[in-house]
Amino acid sequence: MVLLQNTTYEPLTESSAAALAIRLRLFPEGSVLTVSEIGDGNLNLVFRISDHESGQSVIIKQALPYAKVVGESWPLTLKRATIEANALSVFKKLAPNYVPEVFFSDEIFAITVMEDLSHLTIARTGLIQGEDFPLLPKHIGEYLAKTLFFTSDYGLKPAEKKELVGKFINPELCKITEDLIFTDPFFDAPTNDFEEGLRKDAEKLWADEELKLEAALLKKSFLTETESLLHGDLHTGSIFANNDETKVIDPEFAFYGPAGFDLGQVVANLLFQQIANPEKQRKTSSQIRVFWKTFSQEYSKLWKEQNTDPLSSNDRFLAYLLEKYLQDAAGFAGCELIRRTVGLSHVADLDGIQDKVKRLDAKRTALQLGSKFIKNHRTIKSIEDLIG
Amino acid sequence: MVLLQNTTYEPLTESSAAALAIRLRLFPEGSVLTVSEIGDGNLNLVFRISDHESGQSVIIKQALPYAKVVGESWPLTLKRATIEANALSVFKKLAPNYVPEVFFSDEIFAITVMEDLSHLTIARTGLIQGEDFPLLPKHIGEYLAKTLFFTSDYGLKPAEKKELVGKFINPELCKITEDLIFTDPFFDAPTNDFEEGLRKDAEKLWADEELKLEAALLKKSFLTETESLLHGDLHTGSIFANNDETKVIDPEFAFYGPAGFDLGQVVANLLFQQIANPEKQRKTSSQIRVFWKTFSQEYSKLWKEQNTDPLSSNDRFLAYLLEKYLQDAAGFAGCELIRRTVGLSHVADLDGIQDKVKRLDAKRTALQLGSKFIKNHRTIKSIEDLIG
Repeated sequence: MVLLQNTTYEPLTESSAAALAIRLRLFPEGSVLTVSEIGDGNLNLVFRISDHESGQSVIIKQALPYAKVVGESWPLTLKRATIEANALSVFKKLAPNYVPEVFFSDEIFAITVMEDLSHLTIARTGLIQGEDFPLLPKHIGEYLAKTLFFTSDYGLKPAEKKELVGKFINPELCKITEDLIFTDPFFDAPTNDFEEGLRKDAEKLWADEELKLEAALLKKSFLTETESLLHGDLHTGSIFANNDETKVIDPEFAFYGPAGFDLGQVVANLLFQQIANPEKQRKTSSQIRVFWKTFSQEYSKLWKEQNTDPLSSNDRFLAYLLEKYLQDAAGFAGCELIRRTVGLSHVADLDGIQDKVKRLDAKRTALQLGSKFIKNHRTIKSIEDLIG
Repeated sequence: MVLLQNTTYEPLTESSAAALAIRLRLFPEGSVLTVSEIGDGNLNLVFRISDHESGQSVIIKQALPYAKVVGESWPLTLKRATIEANALSVFKKLAPNYVPEVFFSDEIFAITVMEDLSHLTIARTGLIQGEDFPLLPKHIGEYLAKTLFFTSDYGLKPAEKKELVGKFINPELCKITEDLIFTDPFFDAPTNDFEEGLRKDAEKLWADEELKLEAALLKKSFLTETESLLHGDLHTGSIFANNDETKVIDPEFAFYGPAGFDLGQVVANLLFQQIANPEKQRKTSSQIRVFWKTFSQEYSKLWKEQNTDPLSSNDRFLAYLLEKYLQDAAGFAGCELIRRTVGLSHVADLDGIQDKVKRLDAKRTALQLGSKFIKNHRTIKSIEDLIG
């Protein structure tokens, strides 16, 4: 391609990133641009390019061919940048208010040039710092109603849906989830990472055959149910927010899977705040209630107005589906609670608790709640069952 | 390609089919070949090419770009020939005894050159004529245990399975099943085709909301569950057999779907014989019992010896899976019983009953049994529940 001078991958520098932004005509000619690399350096380079005079800015994100997680270096497909750009483009069409705009993407360079969201805060960071994001639960409920409905067999024509299934086959990133969420935390696996004080609790998980059976059913659903195009990694670190706006970023794990997986990750990541701060229980319950109510109302509305499948166009099927989504969400939330506590990848909500006793207590609560969600997920009937 | 002189599709003739067989060196040079077109002319051309001297023969099958069903002409993708050749190649590796050998295939010409099975009989035709095929239930049970296990997430590595899912995305042929098996028979659809004497019975189906809910759940499973690579059209017309041998042909509907779909089509198509000939009840029950027992024993053996997924490697998960397959099979068998009676595509087992009263009785039995299977499929616990 003309915009990038090489035909093989190489990492951008601050100056080649700025040059690309100029060639893409994202800034007027002659602009004086400021470039800073703001990524965490683990998975991606992230350049923020801004023009002080006009106040305009964009983000150039480039995938790195490896992942640095807990010091270890894993090779990681660059294709994830294409999946991410394609997923952003699908989700932007379906839920424009909640997805950043993509201006350009390039498969060889694994580059996505997109809207700068620096005026917003990563939701996890903000929540930990005591921010409120009062509209976030409603916004994410609406985002998921739209993306999950319009990419399903009920919102697409059969051939369109199957084409998307093929486009979003994402083996490398799915494998990470399959291992780190569904398998390793339930065994004494070398990838696991937990404080020594939790060893007995972890061993209890590994010996719990009922828990492992129910987790295996959830893993089967993740492996085989192509219900909707998922974000695939929808925790509070993938959400930018302030008091008015909410944007969902980083869908590099996107693939066709069970709707409850995205729903459950949202629920679990809201719960981490309550687990870390028991005084937030009422607030978190209310967030989850608003999230679910918005999702189910909006999904039901779309279903009734726009369902493309005549056989399923009735209220009983819709009720079945919403109950299934809820049960799956409960189970997947349980898996997230457990893997963020004993698995490889943690959350700052829990790890950031300074007092050791409180921190271990919180992590034990996460494990107990996670086990309970997983074991009981097939019998949950309403969002109040789950909150209770 | 060199073997075929044109670069765009055209139908073979007897002489170009023979010339192709020679160029493929399937016969010694100078052989005197006899060619006959033995297809039914609706979907495919089928040439049998034989050499009297050596006794050798092959089949050349070529997809036609349309389907003639009940006088109507539908355009139909030629890609189905590629799907068929690819599926035969996968299944041949997994269950070599039960799949014909493919010598050559060509995507542009939609041609598959394969083993001649003329020494065998189409199972449906043979069963109607009173033949026994004593090994067929056992053979098909073993064929399905192998193909369903080794193409699942438990018999393949995750990336291999996802690659196959993508390779076998088959929108056009799946759409036929979605419409003709899962949707149209449950509505007063123009594609339906039934004797006037069945109108009241058909209207009863269309008004049965419970039946339609359960059918919608089965359709959802067909649309979203990528459990295994299915044959996709495994009725007794897709099976060649004699007293010793059984071969499964025509997998042009192959796609990743719920294992119970293939299992259920076998059960339903064995049942048509019992419905048409109530005196065969004991024999049919025994066939279904042997089929299921072979399938579940062989599947369990493969599961225990070769399961690639550690989380699901336990007896309780296997028991769950076999019960799910049985329940799905019962439901899908119900759909097949109904669609072959009031839908577009019929079976000779029922349509061939000369006596009108007996024929209508048999068809009513098929509808009642089909409804019962669909409505009760989620509560069936054993193969005896189903046979009972």
